[in-house]
Amino acid sequence: MIIHSLLESSHLAGNLLGDPSERDLFVYVPPGYEGSDRRYPTAYLLHAYGQTAEQVVTPDTDGQRWAPPIEDVLDPVFGRMGVPPMIVVVPDGNSRYGCGQWVDSPVTGHFEQYVLHDVVAYVDATHRTVPNSRSRGVFGFSSGGFGAWNLASRNPEIFCAMAVLSSDSFLDMTHKFMPYKYLDSIWPEAPDGPIEGNFWSEIVYDYAACYSPNPERPPFYVDLPVAHPSGELIQEVWDRWLSFDPVVNVHDRLDNLRKLSGILLDAGSNDDYSLYWGHRLLSHHLNEAGIPHEHRENPGNHGGRANERHQMALQWLSEVLDSD
Amino acid sequence: MIIHSLLESSHLAGNLLGDPSERDLFVYVPPGYEGSDRRYPTAYLLHAYGQTAEQVVTPDTDGQRWAPPIEDVLDPVFGRMGVPPMIVVVPDGNSRYGCGQWVDSPVTGHFEQYVLHDVVAYVDATHRTVPNSRSRGVFGFSSGGFGAWNLASRNPEIFCAMAVLSSDSFLDMTHKFMPYKYLDSIWPEAPDGPIEGNFWSEIVYDYAACYSPNPERPPFYVDLPVAHPSGELIQEVWDRWLSFDPVVNVHDRLDNLRKLSGILLDAGSNDDYSLYWGHRLLSHHLNEAGIPHEHRENPGNHGGRANERHQMALQWLSEVLDSD
Amino acid sequence: MIIHSLLESSHLAGNLLGDPSERDLFVYVPPGYEGSDRRYPTAYLLHAYGQTAEQVVTPDTDGQRWAPPIEDVLDPVFGRMGVPPMIVVVPDGNSRYGCGQWVDSPVTGHFEQYVLHDVVAYVDATHRTVPNSRSRGVFGFSSGGFGAWNLASRNPEIFCAMAVLSSDSFLDMTHKFMPYKYLDSIWPEAPDGPIEGNFWSEIVYDYAACYSPNPERPPFYVDLPVAHPSGELIQEVWDRWLSFDPVVNVHDRLDNLRKLSGILLDAGSNDDYSLYWGHRLLSHHLNEAGIPHEHRENPGNHGGRANERHQMALQWLSEVLDSD
Amino acid sequence: MIIHSLLESSHLAGNLLGDPSERDLFVYVPPGYEGSDRRYPTAYLLHAYGQTAEQVVTPDTDGQRWAPPIEDVLDPVFGRMGVPPMIVVVPDGNSRYGCGQWVDSPVTGHFEQYVLHDVVAYVDATHRTVPNSRSRGVFGFSSGGFGAWNLASRNPEIFCAMAVLSSDSFLDMTHKFMPYKYLDSIWPEAPDGPIEGNFWSEIVYDYAACYSPNPERPPFYVDLPVAHPSGELIQEVWDRWLSFDPVVNVHDRLDNLRKLSGILLDAGSNDDYSLYWGHRLLSHHLNEAGIPHEHRENPGNHGGRANERHQMALQWLSEVLDSD
Repeated sequence: MIIHSLLESSHLAGNLLGDPSERDLFVYVPPGYEGSDRRYPTAYLLHAYGQTAEQVVTPDTDGQRWAPPIEDVLDPVFGRMGVPPMIVVVPDGNSRYGCGQWVDSPVTGHFEQYVLHDVVAYVDATHRTVPNSRSRGVFGFSSGGFGAWNLASRNPEIFCAMAVLSSDSFLDMTHKFMPYKYLDSIWPEAPDGPIEGNFWSEIVYDYAACYSPNPERPPFYVDLPVAHPSGELIQEVWDRWLSFDPVVNVHDRLDNLRKLSGILLDAGSNDDYSLYWGHRLLSHHLNEAGIPHEHRENPGNHGGRANERHQMALQWLSEVLDSD
Repeated sequence: MIIHSLLESSHLAGNLLGDPSERDLFVYVPPGYEGSDRRYPTAYLLHAYGQTAEQVVTPDTDGQRWAPPIEDVLDPVFGRMGVPPMIVVVPDGNSRYGCGQWVDSPVTGHFEQYVLHDVVAYVDATHRTVPNSRSRGVFGFSSGGFGAWNLASRNPEIFCAMAVLSSDSFLDMTHKFMPYKYLDSIWPEAPDGPIEGNFWSEIVYDYAACYSPNPERPPFYVDLPVAHPSGELIQEVWDRWLSFDPVVNVHDRLDNLRKLSGILLDAGSNDDYSLYWGHRLLSHHLNEAGIPHEHRENPGNHGGRANERHQMALQWLSEVLDSD
Repeated sequence: MIIHSLLESSHLAGNLLGDPSERDLFVYVPPGYEGSDRRYPTAYLLHAYGQTAEQVVTPDTDGQRWAPPIEDVLDPVFGRMGVPPMIVVVPDGNSRYGCGQWVDSPVTGHFEQYVLHDVVAYVDATHRTVPNSRSRGVFGFSSGGFGAWNLASRNPEIFCAMAVLSSDSFLDMTHKFMPYKYLDSIWPEAPDGPIEGNFWSEIVYDYAACYSPNPERPPFYVDLPVAHPSGELIQEVWDRWLSFDPVVNVHDRLDNLRKLSGILLDAGSNDDYSLYWGHRLLSHHLNEAGIPHEHRENPGNHGGRANERHQMALQWLSEVLDSD
Repeated sequence: MIIHSLLESSHLAGNLLGDPSERDLFVYVPPGYEGSDRRYPTAYLLHAYGQTAEQVVTPDTDGQRWAPPIEDVLDPVFGRMGVPPMIVVVPDGNSRYGCGQWVDSPVTGHFEQYVLHDVVAYVDATHRTVPNSRSRGVFGFSSGGFGAWNLASRNPEIFCAMAVLSSDSFLDMTHKFMPYKYLDSIWPEAPDGPIEGNFWSEIVYDYAACYSPNPERPPFYVDLPVAHPSGELIQEVWDRWLSFDPVVNVHDRLDNLRKLSGILLDAGSNDDYSLYWGHRLLSHHLNEAGIPHEHRENPGNHGGRANERHQMALQWLSEVLDSD
């Protein structure tokens, strides 16, 4: 069963995009919740770029491929698959540019603070969670996996485990072409904001709003990492992007990572953006630092097996989180 | 819950491909079945080309995209979607060339007779079905939709309703290129049987084994509809294929079709094989004959929304079948 | 050297599309022509769908791939390749729908009569041709090959040889999907004329204007071979299309074909429209009738080797045509 | 007319790949050469990766698209296009891994020295060139453009002009993915040399043999820039690759570049490898340094307009080179 609320967040208020500070919040309670008074461990599902929490719960129906409602993905986890029951929380991280990437930005909003302080507090207050970090995990796919990494590796006192699924990573190899694709799409015009229906324009402004925001630079409030028309990579801006990259910031977060109960890295070995290389490299760095973790690959492309990986991540989390 | 049996069929015995006559049979009983003694309407799910019943129940896990177990598709129908409970039967129609197309052939086996006389009898004998045609429907996707058409339009005394999903149809427009693609794939060699991993070879021999079998012609026992190397269409053989095409044989089955309680045609408007044109044409012919039916289209490509359409078909069948 | 003229044609005047009756005509005279007073055999190069004579001579320069000026294709034939000199004539067969297909139509214009009576007469009158059929051949690629077939197989007293390169052919297998692709592109709207930039709309109206014109049916003056929205193939209209198909009309033109000095069929074995099947079938029918011809295949796709095949066709024509 | 010789090179002898030190050399002499005793400026055409000099002169005939003999490309330059006559030299730069990249390597051979000292000396000795740098230019497409850059920017006393066509450049953005694609193609196996028919394996070993050769490391004698299986970029090796990149080494060659009579940069704006970005960036750096140059773009993809650009480059060179 899924319970819908609206949550006002002071950490999202005043974002420069003018996006709403009141957001949907969906809480899935497992079979048996209602008839019991016990407390449950909690898993936070962070959605991907281009989604809303509502679309996770009830996907759009206009695509060539079907995506089932999240309830049909979660019910079998705690039914057919026999995973001990958990509460699953689906917060909203959408921005008008696509996604807040679950990080703090004066432009898109402080999504990290919003999850840490608004969402977690609200859920613990309103549902029978086991309200401490040992029973609280975070997981997500693509930008959601990126968000899971960021939240847990920076806040082990809040989330003791993360399942990082096909996360944006190794940007210097996997994402550097994107600003160039964007410039190609509008060439020879100069950048002038995201254009509806132009994917590259939207994702580049989205990343820039999260990784290299610049409140002094209206109307889009971002620094772009590539100069127009020269094509020069602006290293200072690109380094700001890279500072969010798990394969880069892992080195600065080793102490935090050692505090976690579990780290799962999982990627499709046919990922369209080659994100499995980011995961391999991240696993390599964790190994170098002697930090235990699971590193899995599946035969999926980017997205094709996301729901199955959500199920698998919950199964893994149930083994890592304290149930009381 | 799914109950597995093995069913020996005299109608499959002696097929010239040497395929087994004992087949898997899966019966899904809806929530509440076990605690009751009531009888349920029954829907027969015919699978597509290239599948087995077992793969429907437990799909292969090696693909770039995930397919959920059929149980996770059916449970929400009778749960979240609120459809009155039905029994869903999944017989096996696989052949070593891909699929028996749910028709009678001395080469692949008499799959129509097998469903009509072995499967239905067995299910009615072993489960609490409402054992008559008014409570018995058939549905399927692609070759399974083709099978649904064939079974119900020829045997209205067994199946009173059919949901035809993205059925092979209008072969003269949608399938004529296939034997040529096959010849291309082996050119300039002459046809010499299906080749593993060569899709066009497999599907052409599969169709031929079902539509233009020739027991006098070992080792493959088929007539192919295109001459090698001239490329001439052998009209006599092609006409045998067309006789199985719903848009052709509809004209000869109008009396049967009038006896049905319901006909649903549904296809994706982005079907990779343009099968929506077959469905439109079939609907046109039904309209010309004054035969009521539902004609739906969805935004899917071939296969991308198959499971959702299975759910929709069950919802529709529940309204058409007598529940007692 | 290429000499440009403008040619007014009474056979194009009054076409219902309002296309001009005055057309470009380009005549290539081989090296040595100017310093001599001898007469030369003549080859008529018919261009493809979507082209003009001017574009053959001086191709557009805005494509991702380069096409050289026709002079750079022809000079090496009579230089490096050592082919005896010929005059090469490039008439214009464009229509506002793409191409007149080199056939007579009240809608697009009587292109067959125009070539036979205007172009040939003009060229013979103004250049030192050997002015008789034994020294006159016709060749072309795609719709130009289709035109070559049509002109020579109907008028052996004008053209004694044809090189048919990747001709439209076997329409029942290779072209039947096209009207459906067109309907797909505008679905669910009803046909309402060619739409600029919509390839399928343009080519379908083009074919219809040539093969199934209907002067009684303004504003487009065509019968389309597929009904909207039923998708039914209108057999009577489709048969009119098929009557222009070489693999169909070959049977009625055997006497004419026997009069020819040479027939060359050549297609790319990777043709995007599978036209090699049309050529194979045409060759098969010619063989059945005991009509000698050359049947060649090359490794090209549709268009990729067109200029090389033009060169090869001229080399072949030089061996077939009388040089005096 | 093209004159073929075989040229033995001490600079290629002893290469660790065991490739021949005797190479084809083709010299195109323009129309009028034979009947005159004048001297001509000379343009050196460096071929692309995967080619041989012989294939430039007489391309393979087994492709889906046709490539004309180089003579048919050059003759119109000095005929139809009216460019003053030049000698065009086509040396061979092939290696068993694809191409020597026209640089010095102990593994593939010292191709820079070979061109500078063997080819130029031989051509000046055997043909009526104007034998000095003011009348000597170099041009090429893709790896040939890369070679043109390298030769002229390092040796302005030999070549006074270069036409750089779609050169490998900005490797950090355009080529970094290639070693990863290679690892993908053999995953999870470890690198074990180039594999015939595996493009990524061949080009990665080719680049490594040229940019990061390691004679101490049999049997392939290269350092690869990516570690297996971690995926870590080995920055020291990658920096060796980058040192060959025009957008990197331009900064160290400004004095040389100022000595040149002309620099032409030309790329297709639809280049499949986005090399237009390398050219734009290179032009930007030249502008920053106040070095005059031409910067052109054409609508081509990678390769689609290469022959036309060869013609254009010769036209440009004829204006830059001294004719006596």
